[in-house]
Amino acid sequence: MTVLEALLRPRSIAIVGASRRPNKVGNIILRNLLASGYRGKIYPVNPAAPEILGFKAYPSLRKVPGEVDMVVVAIPAEHVLQVVDEAAEKNAKVLVVISSGFSEVGRRDLEEKLVRRAREKGMRVLGPNIFGVVYTPWGLNATFGPSMILRGRIALITQSGALGVALMGWTSSIGVGLSAVVSVGNMADLGFDEISEVLAEDPETRVITLYIEGIKPGTGKRFIEKMRRVSLRKPVVAFKSGRTSRGSAAASSHTGSLAGSDSVYQAAFEQSGVLRAMTLEEMFDWARAFAEQPLPRGNRIVIITNGGGVGVIATDAAEEQGLRLIDPPEDLVREFRRHMPWFGSAKNPVDLTGMAAGPEYSGAVEAALKHPDVDGVIVLYCETGLVHPRDLAGALIETYRKVRDEGVEKPMLVSMIGGDETNKALIHLDRRGIPAYPMPERAVSAMAAMIRYKNWLDKALHS
Amino acid sequence: MTVLEALLRPRSIAIVGASRRPNKVGNIILRNLLASGYRGKIYPVNPAAPEILGFKAYPSLRKVPGEVDMVVVAIPAEHVLQVVDEAAEKNAKVLVVISSGFSEVGRRDLEEKLVRRAREKGMRVLGPNIFGVVYTPWGLNATFGPSMILRGRIALITQSGALGVALMGWTSSIGVGLSAVVSVGNMADLGFDEISEVLAEDPETRVITLYIEGIKPGTGKRFIEKMRRVSLRKPVVAFKSGRTSRGSAAASSHTGSLAGSDSVYQAAFEQSGVLRAMTLEEMFDWARAFAEQPLPRGNRIVIITNGGGVGVIATDAAEEQGLRLIDPPEDLVREFRRHMPWFGSAKNPVDLTGMAAGPEYSGAVEAALKHPDVDGVIVLYCETGLVHPRDLAGALIETYRKVRDEGVEKPMLVSMIGGDETNKALIHLDRRGIPAYPMPERAVSAMAAMIRYKNWLDKALHS
Repeated sequence: MTVLEALLRPRSIAIVGASRRPNKVGNIILRNLLASGYRGKIYPVNPAAPEILGFKAYPSLRKVPGEVDMVVVAIPAEHVLQVVDEAAEKNAKVLVVISSGFSEVGRRDLEEKLVRRAREKGMRVLGPNIFGVVYTPWGLNATFGPSMILRGRIALITQSGALGVALMGWTSSIGVGLSAVVSVGNMADLGFDEISEVLAEDPETRVITLYIEGIKPGTGKRFIEKMRRVSLRKPVVAFKSGRTSRGSAAASSHTGSLAGSDSVYQAAFEQSGVLRAMTLEEMFDWARAFAEQPLPRGNRIVIITNGGGVGVIATDAAEEQGLRLIDPPEDLVREFRRHMPWFGSAKNPVDLTGMAAGPEYSGAVEAALKHPDVDGVIVLYCETGLVHPRDLAGALIETYRKVRDEGVEKPMLVSMIGGDETNKALIHLDRRGIPAYPMPERAVSAMAAMIRYKNWLDKALHS
Repeated sequence: MTVLEALLRPRSIAIVGASRRPNKVGNIILRNLLASGYRGKIYPVNPAAPEILGFKAYPSLRKVPGEVDMVVVAIPAEHVLQVVDEAAEKNAKVLVVISSGFSEVGRRDLEEKLVRRAREKGMRVLGPNIFGVVYTPWGLNATFGPSMILRGRIALITQSGALGVALMGWTSSIGVGLSAVVSVGNMADLGFDEISEVLAEDPETRVITLYIEGIKPGTGKRFIEKMRRVSLRKPVVAFKSGRTSRGSAAASSHTGSLAGSDSVYQAAFEQSGVLRAMTLEEMFDWARAFAEQPLPRGNRIVIITNGGGVGVIATDAAEEQGLRLIDPPEDLVREFRRHMPWFGSAKNPVDLTGMAAGPEYSGAVEAALKHPDVDGVIVLYCETGLVHPRDLAGALIETYRKVRDEGVEKPMLVSMIGGDETNKALIHLDRRGIPAYPMPERAVSAMAAMIRYKNWLDKALHS
């Protein structure tokens, strides 16, 4: 096991600062490890308690029997340094330092000492000033955030603690699954680039998302080089806050990072192939597409709809985002015509009209996906009495699987507008590998991000 | 009763084309009228059925006893003209022509005849090619859309039928209440401007939203004049699709409207004070703020948060949208300091830190709202274990009411990020008059729209 593998797949974890009191960070982390089904060894460390939540507790890290891969540290800052030597004796690989009270409150000295000493002993440090780390395939939830997280293929690395914890809850509540959540906090040692490298190797992670306020001064070149290598392996989507001067000032008072001018970040993202989302919602919209769907080979897109209005809205978005809405060739027009009444439109957007139910959608979607002139399909639906959203979702899932089983690998994204049943159908589609969005522009934006990444990849691989 | 009052408050409705078959439009409309609690007289008209859904049915409109304010027409296009004369005999004021098969399929002649004849008899026409009309305060749901609609203060006028029906479901499912939904379809007679005039007079409507694909050629000047007068009464928010050339082409094949260049619409909106939203979601985000909150007197805004990250995100959005984040004066800083730990920040964004619970939020919000240098407050929250989202929502509602009862009339908008409980708290806040959004940028964008409208209003009233 390499040092950094221990960050996601520790065989044993000690929690220094484990507590019996339910509201304490050192208690919540232990409970979350239990709830998430972690199967490695757990060693609570607390000098005053012989037993915590049914686990034998140890008065010090030294007294823990055997080796410890990961040491979670949740004690006051001034005591953290002592833990480093003990962790080294236990052959620990990673220190996950939850404790705050370091550079974010002016104690850069303490932080530097901590890292220097850990690195001397061959250990790496996550944090300090973080909420912890999650890796769902390993049943690892060593955080004081929510206990229940939906498992999936999206990894999140976040510089903000409160936001990261809130996003753990938010993603689960909207049905978005995560592979990993890594809180980097003060980034005294490990930062976005090295964590991304670990996740680039992780077979359970398909896409990496970053919430960035600012990287550390002097690490820009390394960030670009490493992130470029990561982007060649899998897509990285970043949301960078502190774009404006006042926002940047707020960021530096928050994380102590020097946000720097936005154009510098923009250039770094472009050079490294990192896709920049302009809102958090957009970041996850794109990540959902990358997590579940194959990349399009080109930008030739067909939009299929049952409502003219949403077709127009999606067309605007497609034009603005550089998708190419092809004029369907004659054979495809003929095929589309078979699935619509005479007043439908076989142009692109293809309007099946409000008369369309499951079979019409399936027929048109199958024809589009199979046609060699089409690189990807966006399906739109306005809730009507004619086809229940659940039935349409079922038809779309079945059609997509059938076509895929016949060897066609193209992305399909869906948008549905409607009431409660439609919202349920969106989650149903999502959980079965077809990203579905409540507004048409969001599906278009995700398809555009996939195309941009594909273009970058093609260029980077041939240069 | 004026002719157009009958559109929202008809005392009696005849449904020509009422049907006993559950899937027929003429059956769904009747069922929706029943479900929505309409208390006027309902006369189903059907030559073949003596009784429909418990109502006595009439073989023709002529046979209906007494007067009829509104005639809903849901029969094939070629028979619609006959209904006009009969409706006139019944002293009808408005024809709600659901039927399609007019100009949208090339039968402009039929449509023109219909309108000419109706206008000669003193009647107005809504449609044709529409899904109907809703006015929740009157228990009126004369549509074939969803039967349950949440009552509220936002009116929607939509040119797209499928989208309008879908939005009826969508708004209810996310807790957004509507006063009216008017489907204008082909706009053979009544269009956006005249319907908006009716809604401008309606005390139950606080804000009007428009989904526009294109207005009719030659009506631009009238649109600007009338909409300007409406905007002086209450805010109007429009989402115009067909911005791009391909989108505009799709729009004209959809509604037959000549979309025209986008810059013409942009100018028309600017001249008439209509606020232009760039997505449907944004349109409703803004409308929710207008529907529930007083206008700010100026652009001096304070952001209060428990998470630095969301504070930075909101600050970026505020800067980009022209809000003025004031540097709090000393007395306000002192007041803020009372509600945060030493490592909090009394700058703007005001960071109460993750330690903040209900009392800290209440104290800081009250101080900000009451301060003469502050025109509006944006409250942000990342879900933490320290304060349950429901309790925070309760504290915010209570504080806002208290301050308002003391005579302070300023807008407060909220954004909360978190899991299921947070999502419930958002709806709880919304339903109690405090618009709440799942992402910070959306609260900022709504505040900015309020400020733009206030600025326009000030200028328009003094010119």
